[in-house]
Amino acid sequence: MRERDIAVFSGSAHPELAAELCAHLGVPLSPTRVSRFANDCLEVQLQANCRERDVFLVQPLVAPVQEHLVELLLMCDAARGASAGRITVVMPHYSYARSDKKDQPRISLGGRLVADLMVAAGASRVLAMTLHSPQVHGFFSVPVDHLHALRELATHFRRYDLSRTTVVSPDLGNAKEAAAFARMLGAQVAAGAKQRFADDRVSINSVIGEVAGRDVIVLDDEIAKGSTVLELLDRLRELGPRSIRVACTHGLFTSGALKRIGEQPDVLEIVCTNTVPVPEEERTDKLRVLTVAPQLAEAVRRIHNGESVSALFDAPRSE
Amino acid sequence: MRERDIAVFSGSAHPELAAELCAHLGVPLSPTRVSRFANDCLEVQLQANCRERDVFLVQPLVAPVQEHLVELLLMCDAARGASAGRITVVMPHYSYARSDKKDQPRISLGGRLVADLMVAAGASRVLAMTLHSPQVHGFFSVPVDHLHALRELATHFRRYDLSRTTVVSPDLGNAKEAAAFARMLGAQVAAGAKQRFADDRVSINSVIGEVAGRDVIVLDDEIAKGSTVLELLDRLRELGPRSIRVACTHGLFTSGALKRIGEQPDVLEIVCTNTVPVPEEERTDKLRVLTVAPQLAEAVRRIHNGESVSALFDAPRSE
Amino acid sequence: MRERDIAVFSGSAHPELAAELCAHLGVPLSPTRVSRFANDCLEVQLQANCRERDVFLVQPLVAPVQEHLVELLLMCDAARGASAGRITVVMPHYSYARSDKKDQPRISLGGRLVADLMVAAGASRVLAMTLHSPQVHGFFSVPVDHLHALRELATHFRRYDLSRTTVVSPDLGNAKEAAAFARMLGAQVAAGAKQRFADDRVSINSVIGEVAGRDVIVLDDEIAKGSTVLELLDRLRELGPRSIRVACTHGLFTSGALKRIGEQPDVLEIVCTNTVPVPEEERTDKLRVLTVAPQLAEAVRRIHNGESVSALFDAPRSE
Amino acid sequence: MRERDIAVFSGSAHPELAAELCAHLGVPLSPTRVSRFANDCLEVQLQANCRERDVFLVQPLVAPVQEHLVELLLMCDAARGASAGRITVVMPHYSYARSDKKDQPRISLGGRLVADLMVAAGASRVLAMTLHSPQVHGFFSVPVDHLHALRELATHFRRYDLSRTTVVSPDLGNAKEAAAFARMLGAQVAAGAKQRFADDRVSINSVIGEVAGRDVIVLDDEIAKGSTVLELLDRLRELGPRSIRVACTHGLFTSGALKRIGEQPDVLEIVCTNTVPVPEEERTDKLRVLTVAPQLAEAVRRIHNGESVSALFDAPRSE
Amino acid sequence: MRERDIAVFSGSAHPELAAELCAHLGVPLSPTRVSRFANDCLEVQLQANCRERDVFLVQPLVAPVQEHLVELLLMCDAARGASAGRITVVMPHYSYARSDKKDQPRISLGGRLVADLMVAAGASRVLAMTLHSPQVHGFFSVPVDHLHALRELATHFRRYDLSRTTVVSPDLGNAKEAAAFARMLGAQVAAGAKQRFADDRVSINSVIGEVAGRDVIVLDDEIAKGSTVLELLDRLRELGPRSIRVACTHGLFTSGALKRIGEQPDVLEIVCTNTVPVPEEERTDKLRVLTVAPQLAEAVRRIHNGESVSALFDAPRSE
Amino acid sequence: MRERDIAVFSGSAHPELAAELCAHLGVPLSPTRVSRFANDCLEVQLQANCRERDVFLVQPLVAPVQEHLVELLLMCDAARGASAGRITVVMPHYSYARSDKKDQPRISLGGRLVADLMVAAGASRVLAMTLHSPQVHGFFSVPVDHLHALRELATHFRRYDLSRTTVVSPDLGNAKEAAAFARMLGAQVAAGAKQRFADDRVSINSVIGEVAGRDVIVLDDEIAKGSTVLELLDRLRELGPRSIRVACTHGLFTSGALKRIGEQPDVLEIVCTNTVPVPEEERTDKLRVLTVAPQLAEAVRRIHNGESVSALFDAPRSE
Repeated sequence: MRERDIAVFSGSAHPELAAELCAHLGVPLSPTRVSRFANDCLEVQLQANCRERDVFLVQPLVAPVQEHLVELLLMCDAARGASAGRITVVMPHYSYARSDKKDQPRISLGGRLVADLMVAAGASRVLAMTLHSPQVHGFFSVPVDHLHALRELATHFRRYDLSRTTVVSPDLGNAKEAAAFARMLGAQVAAGAKQRFADDRVSINSVIGEVAGRDVIVLDDEIAKGSTVLELLDRLRELGPRSIRVACTHGLFTSGALKRIGEQPDVLEIVCTNTVPVPEEERTDKLRVLTVAPQLAEAVRRIHNGESVSALFDAPRSE
Repeated sequence: MRERDIAVFSGSAHPELAAELCAHLGVPLSPTRVSRFANDCLEVQLQANCRERDVFLVQPLVAPVQEHLVELLLMCDAARGASAGRITVVMPHYSYARSDKKDQPRISLGGRLVADLMVAAGASRVLAMTLHSPQVHGFFSVPVDHLHALRELATHFRRYDLSRTTVVSPDLGNAKEAAAFARMLGAQVAAGAKQRFADDRVSINSVIGEVAGRDVIVLDDEIAKGSTVLELLDRLRELGPRSIRVACTHGLFTSGALKRIGEQPDVLEIVCTNTVPVPEEERTDKLRVLTVAPQLAEAVRRIHNGESVSALFDAPRSE
Repeated sequence: MRERDIAVFSGSAHPELAAELCAHLGVPLSPTRVSRFANDCLEVQLQANCRERDVFLVQPLVAPVQEHLVELLLMCDAARGASAGRITVVMPHYSYARSDKKDQPRISLGGRLVADLMVAAGASRVLAMTLHSPQVHGFFSVPVDHLHALRELATHFRRYDLSRTTVVSPDLGNAKEAAAFARMLGAQVAAGAKQRFADDRVSINSVIGEVAGRDVIVLDDEIAKGSTVLELLDRLRELGPRSIRVACTHGLFTSGALKRIGEQPDVLEIVCTNTVPVPEEERTDKLRVLTVAPQLAEAVRRIHNGESVSALFDAPRSE
Repeated sequence: MRERDIAVFSGSAHPELAAELCAHLGVPLSPTRVSRFANDCLEVQLQANCRERDVFLVQPLVAPVQEHLVELLLMCDAARGASAGRITVVMPHYSYARSDKKDQPRISLGGRLVADLMVAAGASRVLAMTLHSPQVHGFFSVPVDHLHALRELATHFRRYDLSRTTVVSPDLGNAKEAAAFARMLGAQVAAGAKQRFADDRVSINSVIGEVAGRDVIVLDDEIAKGSTVLELLDRLRELGPRSIRVACTHGLFTSGALKRIGEQPDVLEIVCTNTVPVPEEERTDKLRVLTVAPQLAEAVRRIHNGESVSALFDAPRSE
Repeated sequence: MRERDIAVFSGSAHPELAAELCAHLGVPLSPTRVSRFANDCLEVQLQANCRERDVFLVQPLVAPVQEHLVELLLMCDAARGASAGRITVVMPHYSYARSDKKDQPRISLGGRLVADLMVAAGASRVLAMTLHSPQVHGFFSVPVDHLHALRELATHFRRYDLSRTTVVSPDLGNAKEAAAFARMLGAQVAAGAKQRFADDRVSINSVIGEVAGRDVIVLDDEIAKGSTVLELLDRLRELGPRSIRVACTHGLFTSGALKRIGEQPDVLEIVCTNTVPVPEEERTDKLRVLTVAPQLAEAVRRIHNGESVSALFDAPRSE
Repeated sequence: MRERDIAVFSGSAHPELAAELCAHLGVPLSPTRVSRFANDCLEVQLQANCRERDVFLVQPLVAPVQEHLVELLLMCDAARGASAGRITVVMPHYSYARSDKKDQPRISLGGRLVADLMVAAGASRVLAMTLHSPQVHGFFSVPVDHLHALRELATHFRRYDLSRTTVVSPDLGNAKEAAAFARMLGAQVAAGAKQRFADDRVSINSVIGEVAGRDVIVLDDEIAKGSTVLELLDRLRELGPRSIRVACTHGLFTSGALKRIGEQPDVLEIVCTNTVPVPEEERTDKLRVLTVAPQLAEAVRRIHNGESVSALFDAPRSE
């Protein structure tokens, strides 16, 4: 058998990122045909030879998530049936990672289930970015390369004077990433503390850490509706920060979140990456989208060549 | 441990059928909560004790198919995690069964994949109706009870004079069910034959069998857009049938199919079952929806009690 | 590790085909030793190094089927235990594929079971020809390359004037292949329709389609005892065909079938392939055996080299 | 769900034993239909309800072994597909257990493979008797109840004066069972020692232990062609034993073994059990067949009732 | 088959807890024999009938962890081989849960691996307490009932005036449990923030949240060497708390931790539970060990009876 | 992807052997870091790139066995998670192989369980030496290369006059290896026979075979406490051998066994191999340790290169 070639396919979730990744990699993006039958079932055809190839399937799980998930599973199945040598799912945003624990009886554990489904469909390995919690890595029974966008974000923020900066996590329980980011910037860290009311409503009732007179960078892994960030901004303002910037890896920005956050006069900048597609029409002047394509392409190249990927993610060592 | 109780849950695909099934069974329909997060991920909570219970999850895979499929997988996962004693997926319509063969290179084989996904998610067994082809049974690695609605359809048509009836399958390759149905009615059988053109277009170019002067019942397992039926009607008319009726088990009727078929003046009646929901607003005077709930309920009762289910599907012995 | 070499072994079912395949491939057929112990158990020794090799095991499941099946499973086990790099079962005739549905209660589903047994014994992939139904592909949890002999058969029949030809399937339910073959030849299609009697006896009681004055090619995937073909010939004769030829992929010809069909004076020719061995002593003047070895060899070559196999089976697109 | 009933089916290998077992158990033997198709494939139908039943399938792997093995696998598959609550394979003779080690390169390891095949086909557990080596127990990934017939054999021999008895194993390497049996009888133990010649021929060239003037009981787990026993008898005679009896659990007696051993004038008796069928016509006056049906029935009863089976096999503690 | 009985066995890690659990449950603790061979291998014998029983194996993974882990795996294997109806591992302390993420290249992920090993050894389900992170639940492919000891701890602390209490987590990243506990007590929450130095050393360099003049309860899930707690106490003292208490679920107290913490004059009390054994000789006046046996027994009772367990763990809803 | 490189890691059980193996192989021994946390859990880091590498993990299961076993499982897990191309466990001594049968009710079957655990942890294949019984090979579901040290031992003993040599197995049931060794040396064979007393005590009460005036080589696969050997020596002396030597593959020599055997004045020599580490301080003048490193290195080289390994183990053909 010959040396395995690489073949990269994109689902319909984020073809722009796949194309950019391929451009950096110097390989063509192989075409995928997705058909929808009259009964609403999908069928996928990978339109390039997969036999013994080192196949990469690019698909972040963004809305419509269920469509993109089933499409991805069908892509895995098609690649496996077509005798792919190895199937790596490149999933820059694994949204189901938020379903990572059972905090109520008899609920589904989507983060683990979807990991199992991908393996059942034929995935040999996964390349992920900024999983909601680092433990989600352990949900997979196949090897995972877990990249972080903190380096991209850090490079961006280093253009500013960081001497009075505090990185603020909206959530005390997930403050680890914020703490790591603060260390990368030589900054301080703070976190919102939540209160649960009798009616099961939860809200941020205080911010733990020093904020007054500081240049604040609110950091979350994912911003969807933005309610948590907006609530945090209310609490922060009461403490008198000198400036506010908002940053995240996965900028989903649903329900007009981008507009609502952007309209806050004291928010100077909103920074995210292109792990998920940000619609052109929703972009505002305050938005800055950093690309993760070079990092992803380098990881794909190393995975294909059998080189160490760990050098790429050495930055955000957990505490 | 005590004798296992039964617990029936419904996904959001067809709660009416689940309720009707439960009414026939004499057990309450246990509530299911489906939440959609801001990032479009779903979470399911089964809101009744599943521990050691004999759990039945009712969900036909109708549009939006991907939403209903992932919801079903999450329901299986929730039931498994909640220590269900046994999980039976009651799937009156398994739409992915149409993806049952590889007729092009590197395509997905959805019928097998989705069967595997259900098992990966925790399903212990499946109760299905009128699978697109009987071989799909073999796609499942867990026991399947495969019911048919032909008996319900036959009971309906026996009210008519069947002495000059011909059952017509739109497709020569899937004529087995039509042949079985014809035998149940003591009728003749005929089938459309297709031609594939150079441009890969396929159309019915003839009907094989006796149609002139006959009372025709067009029978298909599923009618979605209805294009095939309408094309078959054109060919049939050229042969001068005495009357035309249209019947199917799964009446999906997408893209205005019900209206378009109903508008054919020589179509006297359209008969389907409630394996899938038929929207109230699309129903026409010519439509007759037969219920499969009693048959499903009886099958569930027998599965739960360990009684033979085969007596229920003795009719449509394949050739 | 070095580039993987190829190693081809044959079971005792059809060593002639394996030898012919190897000749086309330009590789030696590696020896296999099958021992039978005093207690009737078998033991297999593969007598060439398998370590990291790309191993192909050639064995059609012909009579004695159970002997050949267990022998094949032992060959898979021996190859796996000997650290084969990949194990491809080359199975030109998968007889258990006929057990592809449950048409009676509590019966075995041999087509799926045997597929699972091969995987349990170590098979990494399968190369099959003309499976009884295309859905059987989906019974395998490993990649299957499914070849067809229709191209070989078509090449043979194109020597005749095909302007008045009708391809006849003995069975309405399996007419798909006949329809595909008819399209390849630019011919018409017809099919036998069966009747089931009260005593569960089934017989062909009519032929649907145009036969009178036509040059008929009866096509089936497999002819064993030949009863169905002989019964069909009786019905065909009543309709006055101009000529009759009989063709199939798998010419099992048990119970003197070859003699009985050959004795029909109006049968001009019987055509089959060598997917199964046809005993020299049973051959008649009317028999024409086409070889599939070149096609199989080309498929093995492409599988080994990681080239697309789909080009080989583009012909018989199902309807 | 109701309390599980028991259902016992027999394959075609040894229906007499199954019937005797059922008589002791006080339950009817449920009918099994085995069909052979024209292409030599088998199909099994279990002709009694299996749903949630505690199913027992009785089949020793005697000649024709491959037929009986595939038949058994199809029975497992049928029972699983028919929703059996639990499937216990009752296998009084597991002939493939002799293939328990790799003493040559690239050979199959039938003892482990067949164990895996049974599990792949649906077996939940196994009831075996006198496995060739006790390690074979560990080849199964499902629970095994391993009975021994030594108690039945010991009961038989206790009718004789055992004061000068030596139990002789034909094989030094498998002398454990003989040693255990000797301890049960308060007798001595001896064993044949083999020599391997340059041409790979092996023969017994001496007997280690005291034989002269002793009452010898030759004990093996299985006698097939009997060559080993006959060779051992030659060596024993050179040592002057007082009397010779031959005993085994599995009396396969192929190739006229019974006649050949019986014709030895100094062999007073041949004792075996009915774990395998001994044909009526081959029986000689010297043969004594002991029944294991009561022991098997008691084990089945305890397995069904969840009672301890270990009390049944406490005798032959290994050294 | 009869209704399944319960059978509880204890490994050698914490027989006192198992005995107390059984006393609450009203069932005898069945004896386990653990033998160590001359070559240091272990063998386990469960000395009571397991057949079809509902088996519970009690073993927290405390030091020597590897001995207790392998012993537990052997217990699972013995129960499975002895035909246990169901095997529940009762693991009040799952120490490997701390290995829940990959923060360095090429490290083992013990939390997931050990979960898989238990399933490979036969465990059907797990009953755990206070897992290091809630995501560890998702490492298991079998159902997990995850109890918390926060209710026991809260009951204890409610005897004090809690009006000025702050619960302090040593680690910002794991502050969720502290936050939940604070809400249960109506208290505030604070957390230590760590700094990573160039030499990879990490230390707590500040406490985020209000501590001055407050009654502090330091809460961690597990205290082993106690270094983190002692370091946190240093930081806390700089902030002037009114009083200090230390609490945890799993009181491992290795390397003299109990003595070192107890010697801190401003530490008023050390509270833990008996999920792990606390040696009598190391106990100090300041130590208070709360029992979790009643909660565990109630969970076992409900699991056995198929009653809802979720009512037991409703308290510590995550944020 | 490039050709796979080799990477060898050693656990902490026998780093000297790993180093010697690497020296023979001409590749560096890659470093492994094993950390023990305060709660006694282990974490392994493989400190060289494993990605797509052909990874070999060297670890005999010697005391402390449980520590070394869990360490090995963590090493497998780390290699798998680090995307090793293939993981071969090099296990010169598989101590759990002695737990190879169920001779008492409800005991663990460690030999099979540990084999399954290694596969569950990611092992792709195993390289073992002198397994306690050859059947243990069949406990593994992955390929095993089973080497023997008999050739090394034979080479050693051929320096002596072997004309009057008898090889003595302490155990009649495991005499196969002794018989094979005797054939290699052209010597005779004898074996100890055990008696089981009423109190379940077992002792060697006789030696079967010719010993008087012979040069005896006592051969066992493993010597741990040495009690069996010492007991055998007592029986041998009663028979008047001319000389006594003791040999084994795995020289565990626990509880002062080396000293005790060495102190026997008539024992001329004790020979073992370095499959396990023999502590420098316990070595006596009578001890001779043969190295298996060259044989292991050659096997590793062949496994890596895909060359036949069977040539290495052709000697001890079982009877």
